[in-house]
Amino acid sequence: MIRNRLDSLNCSVAHALDLIGERWTMLILREAFFGTRRFEDFHRHLGIARNILTARLCKLCDCGILDRVPVKDGARRQEYRLTSMGRDLLPILVALTQWGDRWILGPEGAPIKYIHRATGDEIADVTIRAKDGRSLMERDILLVPGPGATEETRARLQELHDRWERMQASTHDEVS
Amino acid sequence: MIRNRLDSLNCSVAHALDLIGERWTMLILREAFFGTRRFEDFHRHLGIARNILTARLCKLCDCGILDRVPVKDGARRQEYRLTSMGRDLLPILVALTQWGDRWILGPEGAPIKYIHRATGDEIADVTIRAKDGRSLMERDILLVPGPGATEETRARLQELHDRWERMQASTHDEVS
Repeated sequence: MIRNRLDSLNCSVAHALDLIGERWTMLILREAFFGTRRFEDFHRHLGIARNILTARLCKLCDCGILDRVPVKDGARRQEYRLTSMGRDLLPILVALTQWGDRWILGPEGAPIKYIHRATGDEIADVTIRAKDGRSLMERDILLVPGPGATEETRARLQELHDRWERMQASTHDEVS
Repeated sequence: MIRNRLDSLNCSVAHALDLIGERWTMLILREAFFGTRRFEDFHRHLGIARNILTARLCKLCDCGILDRVPVKDGARRQEYRLTSMGRDLLPILVALTQWGDRWILGPEGAPIKYIHRATGDEIADVTIRAKDGRSLMERDILLVPGPGATEETRARLQELHDRWERMQASTHDEVS
């Protein structure tokens, strides 16, 4: 079966990518976090073709990540501002930056550092944590079906669980 | 100026997206985290066209996110496994899932829940934190040029800083 739209999959990653996974979209959002609000400024900073920029900004407004706000000076111009839904993407943007800093950069080092204003220290690496704040590794995490799981998702998670149990058993055999 | 490749920008987000920002790539990585290793299984679970899957897997191997590992049974088959660089993408994947769960899902709820194995609780939301573990808001973060900043990046961060100072001053005027 060929699925043409990512969002037909029973998965929030697919839904999320359907809104923000297109080429240029995350860079437009990075600019918005940097305070860019006007079409001309997005265009100037990113060097993106005007028709693509128009399409991306429209989609981001339509799905609620950006808001169109009229500029107060009475002109017809409007600005684009992040909504709460848009601002909630900051951890993803910072995690992408940190991953790029760790794995891709050459010897010249990071172009931008994120500093905690109150202390002057760099912020922590974005990691997966327990409710009590402890960092978790992949092996500390169990995936279980949520209320929106389809039968297919349930079966796959069961398969994952069974594989984990077998792996644990064989590790135990090796140790004992 | 039109830039044709995202990675010509002085920004780790752009570099990261150049490797993992293509359509299907994050879903292939999600499958890899779920334990999928064989071409046929990626194909079956994602319903992605074979030629696109081949291209994406090749690129992920070339840039060091996946490793090709020969299957031990002596056949010519090979498996794809996440490298350390690939496994380090898990926080981004979890953050995307949680954002999708919060903002896009309908009333049916999350398809998958991430549980901390040791406690049975859901894991915490992926957030930006200070070194001491405290969650930070956007306003708590200061962007400064790193060692790899170009003149253009430095100028933009200075512009951001000046705007912040003006904003703080005007807020102070309103309060006093």
